[in-house]
Amino acid sequence: MKSDYIRPLDIKHGRVDMSHGSGGRAMAQLIEELFAKHLSNEYLAQGDDGARLPAVNGRLVMSTDAHVVSPLFFPGGDIGCLSVHGTINDVAVMGATPLYLAAGFVLEEGFALADLARIVESMAQAAKEAGVPIVTGDTKVVEAGKADGVFITTTGVGVLRQGVDLSGANARPGDAVFVSGPIGDHGTAVMVARGELALEVDLESDTAPVAASAQKLCALGTDLRWMRDPTRGGLATALNELAQQSGLAISIDEHALPVRPEVAGTCEILGIDPLYVACEGRLIAVIASGAVERALSALGAEAADVGEVRAEPEGLVLLQTTLGGSRVVDMLVGDPLPRIC
Amino acid sequence: MKSDYIRPLDIKHGRVDMSHGSGGRAMAQLIEELFAKHLSNEYLAQGDDGARLPAVNGRLVMSTDAHVVSPLFFPGGDIGCLSVHGTINDVAVMGATPLYLAAGFVLEEGFALADLARIVESMAQAAKEAGVPIVTGDTKVVEAGKADGVFITTTGVGVLRQGVDLSGANARPGDAVFVSGPIGDHGTAVMVARGELALEVDLESDTAPVAASAQKLCALGTDLRWMRDPTRGGLATALNELAQQSGLAISIDEHALPVRPEVAGTCEILGIDPLYVACEGRLIAVIASGAVERALSALGAEAADVGEVRAEPEGLVLLQTTLGGSRVVDMLVGDPLPRIC
Repeated sequence: MKSDYIRPLDIKHGRVDMSHGSGGRAMAQLIEELFAKHLSNEYLAQGDDGARLPAVNGRLVMSTDAHVVSPLFFPGGDIGCLSVHGTINDVAVMGATPLYLAAGFVLEEGFALADLARIVESMAQAAKEAGVPIVTGDTKVVEAGKADGVFITTTGVGVLRQGVDLSGANARPGDAVFVSGPIGDHGTAVMVARGELALEVDLESDTAPVAASAQKLCALGTDLRWMRDPTRGGLATALNELAQQSGLAISIDEHALPVRPEVAGTCEILGIDPLYVACEGRLIAVIASGAVERALSALGAEAADVGEVRAEPEGLVLLQTTLGGSRVVDMLVGDPLPRIC
Repeated sequence: MKSDYIRPLDIKHGRVDMSHGSGGRAMAQLIEELFAKHLSNEYLAQGDDGARLPAVNGRLVMSTDAHVVSPLFFPGGDIGCLSVHGTINDVAVMGATPLYLAAGFVLEEGFALADLARIVESMAQAAKEAGVPIVTGDTKVVEAGKADGVFITTTGVGVLRQGVDLSGANARPGDAVFVSGPIGDHGTAVMVARGELALEVDLESDTAPVAASAQKLCALGTDLRWMRDPTRGGLATALNELAQQSGLAISIDEHALPVRPEVAGTCEILGIDPLYVACEGRLIAVIASGAVERALSALGAEAADVGEVRAEPEGLVLLQTTLGGSRVVDMLVGDPLPRIC
């Protein structure tokens, strides 16, 4: 009486159509043959409109990020792994252990299933590496021309580490400011990947989880004052937020800032300051001066002590330039690089 | 030295531009003058890339939904309240108390700030009524023509009620099948609102939270077997999922099904079966036969006992028609109504 037969998805040549977002059999097939195939875990397997998860012990942390990066694939990553790292990192830098992810997809009709499969596979790989399963999801489809391939909104839930209470307000004059590695790689790599510039640059996005580094810094106890991942708006924007939250000044030393020559060169050609260019696998931290050595060894060889917290001028970020001068690093109104994440 | 001055947002005449998604000062202004103004709560006020929440006591439930409804405003609601209700309801029908929401926005460049404000206000109102705050969010902007006004992905977290373990597998032959009110209102109202049909129908979406009804049903203990909110794919799709999960048959009585004349009439003109049309404020439940009276009084005057669980034919949904016949209600491949939620 009942016809269960639908041809298997043609992942190699097929395309997303409106029925894949409709809640019917075609959507169930897309979920089963593409999403569940890569993301499978016990929670997704429950097959309900949400996931039943274990009890947690501690305060919750929740963060969400919509991802609209263009292009979808770039050297060093793609929207899939980026959407996993981005949200896990937001949870981790708040001092929490990331536990679970949810993912909501908006797909454009006509999008190649092969590209979708590549993206979902990349998410699965990133989630697996970070040990944070994607436990529930949703898929919607809009008509061709009403989106741009795929948008992915991920939401992360974690549990705050015992005794960890990070805030810009914890910063004290004399504290050191750290970055965990070179800045601006992600934004520069995505910009170059757009191919609108006649540039050939051998550079990859730094997209990666920072949860392990964040965990090591949390072991410093109250010597760790504050952490952030400097994504949209880059290091300059994150430090301006810190300056505002703390009511103190942040002084950074241009000479000490790790910037790859490829990033510096590309930014110079474009007239962009690398201080404002997004990273997606770095963290910045404020550490008590007595814990500098421990922080450096926790963060690894690429990390750098780039500056310090000062009492004044209140609320400002200052750059000590290589030429011996000093200038204010303000927050920009907009970002020179749209759709970078 | 530092210029803090940006003109206030012109919410009445202004439009979203690319800088509003850039992570800089323009985005901070949009968040402060539009989002935070309506959604303010102690968690959003933390001003970090995520929210620090209290400890929870019990098993977590997590659900996410991407919302792409077209049009954005329709009789009885809009994408704002819909995105709140949709996710809260998914959490509630799993037997959990919804606690927190996250919201990710993808905005199209040029979208009217007045419309965005109306949508955010509607979210705030819905969240307030349901007692579930929006604790964190994210905003991205894409170029004109790369989205369709606004897409909103909401994610809900809740805590499972003690002793509640709902599943289609709990259903037993003889159990009653309930719906909490008339079906198909939402999908029909949205379809009519598109204005592509020369129809004037006095009908509103049923978008509403079902958490209070779900809570009352949970008080039935193990006499409550399973709940679901029949959104995309409507009652027919939800009951097919139940039939599959339970390995039993679901028999529903066409005569007992509450369908408004406006919905029945519109669907008839369009050749659509109201059984497949989305509701956004209804729940369906399977209840032990001995608890039918208690369930009816818990669900209120609009609820109806519409059928029963049978031993066979396994995995099928059957409709007993008003003409005295019986037909299989299969799962559709697609949905007759795209972008309904």
